[in-house]
Amino acid sequence: MLESLKEEVFEANLELVRRGLVLGTWGNASGCDRASGLVAIKPSGVAYDTMRPDHMVIVDLDGNVVEGSLRPSSDTPTHLVLYRAFDGVAGIVHTHSHYATVWAQACRPIPCFGTTHADYFYGEIPITDPLTKAEIANAYEHNTGEVIVRRFKELAPLHVPAVLVAQHGPFAWGDAPQKAVESAEVLEEIARMALDVLSLSPAQPPIERHLLDKHFFRKHGVGAYYGQKINTPDQK
Amino acid sequence: MLESLKEEVFEANLELVRRGLVLGTWGNASGCDRASGLVAIKPSGVAYDTMRPDHMVIVDLDGNVVEGSLRPSSDTPTHLVLYRAFDGVAGIVHTHSHYATVWAQACRPIPCFGTTHADYFYGEIPITDPLTKAEIANAYEHNTGEVIVRRFKELAPLHVPAVLVAQHGPFAWGDAPQKAVESAEVLEEIARMALDVLSLSPAQPPIERHLLDKHFFRKHGVGAYYGQKINTPDQK
Amino acid sequence: MLESLKEEVFEANLELVRRGLVLGTWGNASGCDRASGLVAIKPSGVAYDTMRPDHMVIVDLDGNVVEGSLRPSSDTPTHLVLYRAFDGVAGIVHTHSHYATVWAQACRPIPCFGTTHADYFYGEIPITDPLTKAEIANAYEHNTGEVIVRRFKELAPLHVPAVLVAQHGPFAWGDAPQKAVESAEVLEEIARMALDVLSLSPAQPPIERHLLDKHFFRKHGVGAYYGQKINTPDQK
Amino acid sequence: MLESLKEEVFEANLELVRRGLVLGTWGNASGCDRASGLVAIKPSGVAYDTMRPDHMVIVDLDGNVVEGSLRPSSDTPTHLVLYRAFDGVAGIVHTHSHYATVWAQACRPIPCFGTTHADYFYGEIPITDPLTKAEIANAYEHNTGEVIVRRFKELAPLHVPAVLVAQHGPFAWGDAPQKAVESAEVLEEIARMALDVLSLSPAQPPIERHLLDKHFFRKHGVGAYYGQKINTPDQK
Repeated sequence: MLESLKEEVFEANLELVRRGLVLGTWGNASGCDRASGLVAIKPSGVAYDTMRPDHMVIVDLDGNVVEGSLRPSSDTPTHLVLYRAFDGVAGIVHTHSHYATVWAQACRPIPCFGTTHADYFYGEIPITDPLTKAEIANAYEHNTGEVIVRRFKELAPLHVPAVLVAQHGPFAWGDAPQKAVESAEVLEEIARMALDVLSLSPAQPPIERHLLDKHFFRKHGVGAYYGQKINTPDQK
Repeated sequence: MLESLKEEVFEANLELVRRGLVLGTWGNASGCDRASGLVAIKPSGVAYDTMRPDHMVIVDLDGNVVEGSLRPSSDTPTHLVLYRAFDGVAGIVHTHSHYATVWAQACRPIPCFGTTHADYFYGEIPITDPLTKAEIANAYEHNTGEVIVRRFKELAPLHVPAVLVAQHGPFAWGDAPQKAVESAEVLEEIARMALDVLSLSPAQPPIERHLLDKHFFRKHGVGAYYGQKINTPDQK
Repeated sequence: MLESLKEEVFEANLELVRRGLVLGTWGNASGCDRASGLVAIKPSGVAYDTMRPDHMVIVDLDGNVVEGSLRPSSDTPTHLVLYRAFDGVAGIVHTHSHYATVWAQACRPIPCFGTTHADYFYGEIPITDPLTKAEIANAYEHNTGEVIVRRFKELAPLHVPAVLVAQHGPFAWGDAPQKAVESAEVLEEIARMALDVLSLSPAQPPIERHLLDKHFFRKHGVGAYYGQKINTPDQK
Repeated sequence: MLESLKEEVFEANLELVRRGLVLGTWGNASGCDRASGLVAIKPSGVAYDTMRPDHMVIVDLDGNVVEGSLRPSSDTPTHLVLYRAFDGVAGIVHTHSHYATVWAQACRPIPCFGTTHADYFYGEIPITDPLTKAEIANAYEHNTGEVIVRRFKELAPLHVPAVLVAQHGPFAWGDAPQKAVESAEVLEEIARMALDVLSLSPAQPPIERHLLDKHFFRKHGVGAYYGQKINTPDQK
């Protein structure tokens, strides 16, 4: 069942390790087959070196396990909230990659300081509100998804394919599991660049709108397969 | 004698090198067989590439060599003080890993700025007092253990499985040698994260108690095998 | 046609990856055969692991494709402006290497703080003006070359073989593709050093003129094959 | 002639590369046979991957080439000044290793902030005066040695086996070429630690004298083979 999706999700999980985005088991990747509404996700607590494609767990968008004998990742409810809310998204990853997590812990969005950022993300990388005590106490992982969705009310997920969860770390996505890995890797590098930019130039403003537009729409303009309504984030 | 413990301790010593926590010979790992009260520890001054499991020295908790022709690590008295004071601890490592040592040299505890930290350590990583002139002059390594134990008077060692010795570096532990290595590795990453968080947000407060509780007790709650009375560190 | 130049340019592109100057496909290298006025450049959108020397595209200095079935790099117009303006230059690379890009994003030139810098670059690494809205809207890549050339009005390109394009990243060059790679690699290391120098000593002045002269002209003095008029940059 | 010394010096040069202390050809190592007063040193401009032990050049302490068809390193005069002035020294290395060079460029000595430093260096790593215009103009490399020796007037070279040349980079040494490599490697790590300590704690004082004494003399006390008069550096 969904063998090629399971293979893609398996590979995406390994790629997170290979690209240095995951220490220990601090990450997970999933993929969604939009036709059937089914999601393949990493199982909980299986070491990377013994993990196989058929270990991937298949769940529906309500979280029911459809196939697989292992328990799905404990972050599964977060992934499902995002798949339900973000139409074109078909791959999601979560990591504690160093620099993205530093910004998340500092509770600050990552400003767009240059074209490296603008080539992939249409504006700053948003930070969620911290979860409230009540949101943490009940359905914590589900609510983690909810604070992300709330933050994206006026943003296009495929134009800003990553978010920082305050005090926690990044989620990143794309229209396929491999694209989600790429979003996470680029996020990590721009998070590292932006930290160093502020060390050198503490009051550095973000780039102007016309440079952002130029770079982002060179790669994502009309005719691109994303094909969505673009909600432009506020470039303060 | 205690062949499997010696093998575990040998492996833990090599893991410190493999994970980049040790430069040159700046580290040591030990393990304690609680049933017999015997400790296996790295010998002093043996290069990692010629070290074998049977080089591990067996000492009792008073420091008498029970087996082995090599001298045990010069830090053995520190390990023994900790094994005598910390009941559930069965593995200890000492490193000069870069970021943990930076915090130790700065004489500052590492605040808990996010869930990466909270998943492993229940509150800030404590810093000891500097040793006094008298504590340095006599039984220095023993006294290094004593200042650690003094700092843990109101902390549960298996809920905060690491400490920074002021002006020196970290000790980390767990209920097995391999767990001590894991504590040391996670400590190093959260030390690095926290340094960067303060560079980005110098007045960043630690996370609130309910998020700390949520993350720590997801992994260490009732029913966990640690099974100890939990002394909660003060989250200032 | 120009087989050895294509081989050199192919190797230069791979070297950028091997030396850690390129993440993903964020870079390109070209070489110019001055006798014929032809340029070999990386094709657009070919993965490094499947790229072959015969994929290199040959264009003339006006940008007409002379040989090759693939489209040349989208940055080709920038390379061509530089080849037309900088006589002795026969190799150019563009990267988003981390530290050089950080200085570019901070819109600051890199001061010459020591002999490591002075051995390769005769004075600070200049930063361009940001492109105007009009320069971005039309012929963006061509205008990127123009702002570089404008910045070098009083500089000798082979004595300062790199530049930072504001909010974007570095271009580096030399009298051969491999030399351009070397310029880019040294630039990255001196950018990293200078960032750390300012963290340690925020008001650090650049080195004095006599030390700059000594080190640069040990390697590039009279009799060196560059053989150009030397325009000395202002060492403020 | 001096085959084993040439082999040692060859290995020391390669070790500088293996340990990440040298980028490109930015380094050199030498060894001195004190019985004959002859020095083996890296030749100038030979790539590391084609270098062989018999490429090492033998010079006497006045700089006359005694054996070898290649030119010795251009830094040879600096090495010779040090061998003439520092009795027990039998191995010297020069690098542009990142963090040590950052301190050299910032013209600051590296304070002793912890036991990692104190285990190898008896007090701060000194910085030389900048060379004067006259010292740069004539016999520059010789004068580089002279400013080092001047700085060590009241220091014991084997108790502080490294120095920072202002605006340039480190020299390190020991009683054998391999020990000089070790000094350079430890220097690099303590330079990196001290930079981060100051970022975390800008007014951090150096450790107190009794802790410095304890750690240094654990490794270098009476009975150690260095056997020299100890001049204690001022711990400001």
